[in-house]
Amino acid sequence: MKEFRIGMIGFGTVGTGVAACIQKNCDLMAARIGIRPVLARIMVRNLDVDRGVEVAEGVLTTNVDDVLNADDIDVVVELIGGTTDARTFVLQAINNGKSIVTANKALLAFHGAEIFAAAEANNVDVYFEASTAGGIPIIKTLREGLAGNRIESIYAILNGTCNYILTRMEHEGIAFAEVLDEAQKLGYAEADPSFDIDGDDTAHKTVILTALAFGRWFDVARMHTSGIRGLDVQDIENAAGMGYKIKLLAIVKPAGNDVDMRVHPVLIPASSMLGQVSDVFNAVCVKGDAVGETMFYGRGAGRDATASAVVADLLEVGLNIAHDSARRVVPFQAHDTYGELTPIDDVRSRYYIRLQVEDKPDVLSRITHIFGESNISIASILQKETTEPVPVVLMTHIAREKDVQSALQKIAGLDVVSDEPVLLRVEDL
Amino acid sequence: MKEFRIGMIGFGTVGTGVAACIQKNCDLMAARIGIRPVLARIMVRNLDVDRGVEVAEGVLTTNVDDVLNADDIDVVVELIGGTTDARTFVLQAINNGKSIVTANKALLAFHGAEIFAAAEANNVDVYFEASTAGGIPIIKTLREGLAGNRIESIYAILNGTCNYILTRMEHEGIAFAEVLDEAQKLGYAEADPSFDIDGDDTAHKTVILTALAFGRWFDVARMHTSGIRGLDVQDIENAAGMGYKIKLLAIVKPAGNDVDMRVHPVLIPASSMLGQVSDVFNAVCVKGDAVGETMFYGRGAGRDATASAVVADLLEVGLNIAHDSARRVVPFQAHDTYGELTPIDDVRSRYYIRLQVEDKPDVLSRITHIFGESNISIASILQKETTEPVPVVLMTHIAREKDVQSALQKIAGLDVVSDEPVLLRVEDL
Repeated sequence: MKEFRIGMIGFGTVGTGVAACIQKNCDLMAARIGIRPVLARIMVRNLDVDRGVEVAEGVLTTNVDDVLNADDIDVVVELIGGTTDARTFVLQAINNGKSIVTANKALLAFHGAEIFAAAEANNVDVYFEASTAGGIPIIKTLREGLAGNRIESIYAILNGTCNYILTRMEHEGIAFAEVLDEAQKLGYAEADPSFDIDGDDTAHKTVILTALAFGRWFDVARMHTSGIRGLDVQDIENAAGMGYKIKLLAIVKPAGNDVDMRVHPVLIPASSMLGQVSDVFNAVCVKGDAVGETMFYGRGAGRDATASAVVADLLEVGLNIAHDSARRVVPFQAHDTYGELTPIDDVRSRYYIRLQVEDKPDVLSRITHIFGESNISIASILQKETTEPVPVVLMTHIAREKDVQSALQKIAGLDVVSDEPVLLRVEDL
Repeated sequence: MKEFRIGMIGFGTVGTGVAACIQKNCDLMAARIGIRPVLARIMVRNLDVDRGVEVAEGVLTTNVDDVLNADDIDVVVELIGGTTDARTFVLQAINNGKSIVTANKALLAFHGAEIFAAAEANNVDVYFEASTAGGIPIIKTLREGLAGNRIESIYAILNGTCNYILTRMEHEGIAFAEVLDEAQKLGYAEADPSFDIDGDDTAHKTVILTALAFGRWFDVARMHTSGIRGLDVQDIENAAGMGYKIKLLAIVKPAGNDVDMRVHPVLIPASSMLGQVSDVFNAVCVKGDAVGETMFYGRGAGRDATASAVVADLLEVGLNIAHDSARRVVPFQAHDTYGELTPIDDVRSRYYIRLQVEDKPDVLSRITHIFGESNISIASILQKETTEPVPVVLMTHIAREKDVQSALQKIAGLDVVSDEPVLLRVEDL
């Protein structure tokens, strides 16, 4: 049987997963696709580390040119992360006529255009299934499985660390800081957790999903991104009391000719499919104009789940080699269906608002008066009987973000309101 | 832009959905894949029916040869159903060098081998995404997205009619016959519902998923298939009391060197993802040795959801035409990983058993003695205080089907047991 030869740069967690998967299932893959994957070379910094996966004599090298410039390597898997060396190596491989498989979101976010142009000029493939939602084949699904659909919305849980923290806060009523601390001890959160908990990881992935679904590759720096840092358990409990859960979501949907794309914590119905997604799992809900509602669920991270996606991409390259069909599906195809990003001020949503107020007779009337002036209609209001300051929880009907923010600013200035108001958006899915 | 030309046979519900989808999203599809789909000809029996979708002058024909023998048609969509004309037309199209897209499960079940051989001989494609789980791109996912994985299990809800009936029985406590009657009035169930409610539709789809995941195309007639006809609401309620729901499932998993593949109602944990799948929705849970647990959820039937899958297949053919890569992915690739079907007698499972007994002192000891003799260990037992006959509900630990059946036969013969015992399998997922 014909074979295709894989060179890998980096042999950390995901790399060892890829090697283990190919070693275990090589015959099965070959039987399925008709060409045999061979993990021919791996560039490592240190030859003497025990990574728990045995490779044949001569596979490991410390010289990256043994991968990038070798005539007997067809496809390069970039798994070193970062955007400096990774960019250099990927471009060098492409210029040497090799296809690329990568899980590197940041590389795509910052150098995607340059890499895709080089790949086009050299007629090679760039695949990146593992960059988004780990083992879930969502890139392939959006690009191929749902290619006949105009996408009407994407709602996605894309960060396992955040979903794990939110699940534990919800189930056990533990404060954010305490759960984060435990998650770090368990290895579910990084020592510096900012990239996960502040929403940036989710934002990078959202840009990729949006590019595939909506045909525009937006700059991640321009989108509204907020994370779950400092989320208060009492808001999770209040939400539960009203039949909602709080999840960190990627939200993407057309808004007129533009795209409303954002990442932030949201109240979603507890009974929704997305509301059932717990712990480190990811899920992507896609609504298409033909297919209707769909959801794709699985592990968004971890050695073997990520390896599953990398290997699927490698097999695509293998099929393209076997059938001489490089670039049958291009990494990103722009189309002019949509215009710009909707500014967050213009977003229309329902809102959850929690205020801490003094228990005085006219407090509610002063607050509701300000909402009324700003044209914000209140759907429900709940004031609990407790010691002061008294929490008041409001749910609005659909309103414009800018109006809500300006009303909240006025309310925060009232002498009867203590603490900063808490504002969370609501999506009824 | 280059175009590829589609001929369609049959213009019923799914056909009009395909035409509507292509008309609406043609430009978007062309932008995405780089070749334009043109619905060039449609064979209908009657030119004068108003189908609610306008097609250009000259597209409709009553002569099937205008589709099958026309030089200007690249791909034929077979949507007439049945296995006689459909087989003849599909083979004729293949022999004329045209690729095939079909949603016809029965055609694949009965004539798949012949059709796939003809397609290989003529170097054309046969795609059938719409045959299984409607709009959910599960065929592509198993064949490509998870191609690096050894599949460890598939649990799937594949029949919307059954899931709708079970959901209403569960939520409203209504008897099977009554819900079926209403489902028929609403158009969710056929006038003759046997194919759905007796599990045959699910069985056909299960054979297809098994073929892709496990590399063997089994004869549907040889697998254990039972449906939901006559399921008693009290068993749904008993299951709920123990934290379970009853779903009609496709179950496929390796059993030693063989494949344990069956379709029947099963108790599954109410809190599982699959337990959340309600109404007409379908879902396929796939566990792979690398990816771990995944689930793919969406509408399993309906005009537009099915059309989404047909159109995705058409775009695959379009890509293969644009890149001269016909048969890049073959319709079915046998591999010798697995042997035979596990006979139902040898299946090992947990069981839910309900007996109607007389309220006498030694009843339970006589029953449990028989289970003990047959080496069946009881996990829980519940006898309700009520008028006679008294229902006794038992849950077993893992046991062999044959042992359970033989014990049940002995128990049914006891003079203190009235009615036929109810036996349902349990999967803890």
